[in-house]
Amino acid sequence: MRVSQILNPTLREVPAEAEVVSQKLMLRAGLIRKAAAGVYTYLPLGLRILKKIEQIVREEMDAKGGQEVLLPIIQPAELWRETGRWDVYGPEMFRVKDRHDREFCLGPTHEEIVTDLVRGEVRSYKQLPLLLYQIQNKYRDERRPRFGLMRGREFVMKDLYSFDKDEAGLAESYQKMYNAYTRIFSRCGLTFRPVEADAGAIGGSGGTHEFMVLADSGEAAVVYCPDCDYAANVEKAECQPQPIKSETVREDYSLVETPHMKTIEQVSDFLGLGQHELVKSMLYQGDEQIFLVLVRGDREINEIKLNNMLGPFVNLQLADPEVVRQTLGCEPGFVGPINAPKDLKIVADLEVSLMKKAACGANQAEQHYINVLPERDFRLDQVFDLRMIVAGEKCLKCGGALKEARGIEVGQVFKLGTKYSKALSANFVDENGQEKPCVMGCYGVGVSRTMAAAIEQNNDNDGIIWPIPIAPYQVIVVPVSMKDSQVVETAEKLYEELLQAGVEVMMDDRDERPGVKFKDADLVGYPLRVTIGSKTLAQGQVEFRLRKTGEMELVKVEELTSKVQGIIAEALK
Amino acid sequence: MRVSQILNPTLREVPAEAEVVSQKLMLRAGLIRKAAAGVYTYLPLGLRILKKIEQIVREEMDAKGGQEVLLPIIQPAELWRETGRWDVYGPEMFRVKDRHDREFCLGPTHEEIVTDLVRGEVRSYKQLPLLLYQIQNKYRDERRPRFGLMRGREFVMKDLYSFDKDEAGLAESYQKMYNAYTRIFSRCGLTFRPVEADAGAIGGSGGTHEFMVLADSGEAAVVYCPDCDYAANVEKAECQPQPIKSETVREDYSLVETPHMKTIEQVSDFLGLGQHELVKSMLYQGDEQIFLVLVRGDREINEIKLNNMLGPFVNLQLADPEVVRQTLGCEPGFVGPINAPKDLKIVADLEVSLMKKAACGANQAEQHYINVLPERDFRLDQVFDLRMIVAGEKCLKCGGALKEARGIEVGQVFKLGTKYSKALSANFVDENGQEKPCVMGCYGVGVSRTMAAAIEQNNDNDGIIWPIPIAPYQVIVVPVSMKDSQVVETAEKLYEELLQAGVEVMMDDRDERPGVKFKDADLVGYPLRVTIGSKTLAQGQVEFRLRKTGEMELVKVEELTSKVQGIIAEALK
Repeated sequence: MRVSQILNPTLREVPAEAEVVSQKLMLRAGLIRKAAAGVYTYLPLGLRILKKIEQIVREEMDAKGGQEVLLPIIQPAELWRETGRWDVYGPEMFRVKDRHDREFCLGPTHEEIVTDLVRGEVRSYKQLPLLLYQIQNKYRDERRPRFGLMRGREFVMKDLYSFDKDEAGLAESYQKMYNAYTRIFSRCGLTFRPVEADAGAIGGSGGTHEFMVLADSGEAAVVYCPDCDYAANVEKAECQPQPIKSETVREDYSLVETPHMKTIEQVSDFLGLGQHELVKSMLYQGDEQIFLVLVRGDREINEIKLNNMLGPFVNLQLADPEVVRQTLGCEPGFVGPINAPKDLKIVADLEVSLMKKAACGANQAEQHYINVLPERDFRLDQVFDLRMIVAGEKCLKCGGALKEARGIEVGQVFKLGTKYSKALSANFVDENGQEKPCVMGCYGVGVSRTMAAAIEQNNDNDGIIWPIPIAPYQVIVVPVSMKDSQVVETAEKLYEELLQAGVEVMMDDRDERPGVKFKDADLVGYPLRVTIGSKTLAQGQVEFRLRKTGEMELVKVEELTSKVQGIIAEALK
Repeated sequence: MRVSQILNPTLREVPAEAEVVSQKLMLRAGLIRKAAAGVYTYLPLGLRILKKIEQIVREEMDAKGGQEVLLPIIQPAELWRETGRWDVYGPEMFRVKDRHDREFCLGPTHEEIVTDLVRGEVRSYKQLPLLLYQIQNKYRDERRPRFGLMRGREFVMKDLYSFDKDEAGLAESYQKMYNAYTRIFSRCGLTFRPVEADAGAIGGSGGTHEFMVLADSGEAAVVYCPDCDYAANVEKAECQPQPIKSETVREDYSLVETPHMKTIEQVSDFLGLGQHELVKSMLYQGDEQIFLVLVRGDREINEIKLNNMLGPFVNLQLADPEVVRQTLGCEPGFVGPINAPKDLKIVADLEVSLMKKAACGANQAEQHYINVLPERDFRLDQVFDLRMIVAGEKCLKCGGALKEARGIEVGQVFKLGTKYSKALSANFVDENGQEKPCVMGCYGVGVSRTMAAAIEQNNDNDGIIWPIPIAPYQVIVVPVSMKDSQVVETAEKLYEELLQAGVEVMMDDRDERPGVKFKDADLVGYPLRVTIGSKTLAQGQVEFRLRKTGEMELVKVEELTSKVQGIIAEALK
């Protein structure tokens, strides 16, 4: 391809609308254009990158026995009513009526439609496992779609759904997809980690991993162990309680004045106690019940863990001050577990149950209790791991010191179990003639999001640095002048030679200054650049440059193609 | 691929919902499944065929300098308001509101969005011509979506938009696309004709061809000349007036009783005249005017021609009986031009102006005039070609006798002119520094429709007969028994050998009776079948069969692969 022949409008200025790096660079590099909030047009180079990622995904799905299908984008409401999701999905779902007033949605996901397909086609265990996938647009009406392809309203996903006859089969399909995803992101040339994640409200039979492309700009925090393969989303990461060495308090607890002291920090300073010697008490409101939640003063509550442990639909929120007053008769800053009402459920982190001498709020303004001993002085209705982990804590698996990183979720593998197959009666007859619901899993790759994440991870001040496997073209050939016939001739010769060798090559044949060409090449992010100038050409050489490191070297014209081939072969291995 | 490994649920019964052949066979052959009215899921084999057609289309677009992009499906209403189409598009357009109540449509076509893109990126004539295309879903909320992929509500299209600096450039782009389309449908192995078509309400600077796959079940009638390359949609086909030899009438016209005679046939029988000696008079209502339209009694009015000639937005409809009574004081059966009110516009076909002695309605019940001479006895306000052509008439180009055929429209090339570029200010600066609107063309291929049309054209009682270039797999290998180890071994060997040779091969490895396998192979429509049975194998032979002709021959095992390769190479040439 030639730069003069392709619509690749690069921009020097950063568009005002852009907030994140990938968005800025994709707009500047002429890969995408905005059509509406969260809705983008892919220009030729952008589409080429997208298709490369798609193709890697497709090959890995096929390799695991995935069968590609194409499900509809517009889906009838009736199916979503059968699973109960039409009413609970909320404003994220685009809904549309046809001319006969029948309701449809623009598929945000395809569990319903694929399960409907399978219930019509699968009769026997002999037809299982069945792995169906598609690559196409998904729709989610985000409240604030503003990060380019990182969080669009129209975006490209690969979604695979597995149907198995039992949990063992599901485990196998899950592992296949886990392995396929590992290959996909490796083949894309990205640094990533599969992390244990929270199954959240999607429900399912447990077990889910998120695939995180590591990038400082990532919206998700993950912890990982450098000594073993443990890695988890902080939302999910399990904590090991860290007991504090101290004597068990013998005296009774007593009330102390803590005038104007509201925060943990203020109270610990004022009482001369470590924050780990305080009990942090927070009142949470569920749909049907109120909870008093306790963690050590130096810890944070992990609301996701809390929600999951207290039941799937408890729908917790931090209680309003008004509710605190009604329930405990005090302001939020002075809440504590001692003498809490009997119908209030007290839920504590594991570490709280190990405290031997503590201070806590007294449910009275400006007062705290000291010398408190959990279970002696207040009851614990439920005790479990409900806190946020922090870097440096011990890995549950191997004891190594955990590290924290930021990540961008680009894939998720998920055990659904029988939620959808039961709701839609997607049954099969097993070896013993028994009818059973299929056991399902779902597995998504954000294809357009992977493109954005790749940029978030691989960029510098000059632009994008594409990993070779997903670069729009692997090499750009830059003749420094279009007026020097020998330079142009050599450039054309090398261009042809590289094409013949199966290299994906772009030729910057524009009559522009070399500076303009170099800037564009860096911005678009071609991994390899070959510059043909008259000076080096006089020595029979061209300049070869790696975008990633900026390394340059002079290479003999006749050795250029095999050098390029070698580097590409290495990268695609 | 192996039949046991693919979701290809064939059906013996014809699904009740199916009305046309392609729909029946696609459902029976397990290529698609219905998800909602006019909305389908593509199963693995169906998707494979779709992708093959897509790839042929893509290659031919690229060969003409087309650049592939991906435009959004959800498009903001504002753009459609700028061109005025938001309000005129009608119920065929799916409309959707986002959570902020902003209006969008699901793109039925992409002129607005692509022109919006171009107005943002194109500044100079140097950037033109620009040919942008995409392959993706389109949405049209058909009133009665009932012919499978022939007329869906969600369907796959390739649409290319050309932007040129002038009409000459447009003519060139148009010709490129015309040639590309000719190559596309040839490469698909289909019998088709490009026909002159009516530009209709889309407007534009004139000039459009439809590409018709010929099939008896086609919904469109086309005429073509077997002696030259003239071909046209009957809606558009121009007629040569066929004068009738007769003396010019000398006597005055006179009134005759025609009791109970209403139709042309009745009147001509009753009066003893040929139908070509009658004037057929029909009253049409436009939005702002009423027209009396005249053709010879043996001819039919072509309402499309009529509408186009009387102005783009005249919006003609046959007048209600009530309007006939009000305008002419009689019932529809007795309408005629003599003494018609002055403000009524009389529009006649060319042949009417050549009539020398005619009969016509008298605007009185049960009466007609005879010995009528047009222009002497009634005025002709406008005369042009407004009739339907019929087979056997002379070709305007070469005089050959025209033939009629049925066709399925699978592509259209269209000169848009500056309609959209003017409305959206998609301007460029020309060589002289003048700002001008881009001159546009649009070019569509119904990709999913082509798949259906291919079946309408190529099927028999046993199922589909795929042309080799778009067959899901080119060859199916059928071992007649999975229990005969030698048969299985040879089948596996041939399967591997064909794969190695780059042939797309399916292996029917199911433990089924040969009859079941043959029936499925014929139904799905694999062009070539190789049957391995113990009897012929004892002679070192396998049975080779062409789906299209049913021809069978015995081929030596070691010669099979090269024979298959030869046939495929020929078909893909």
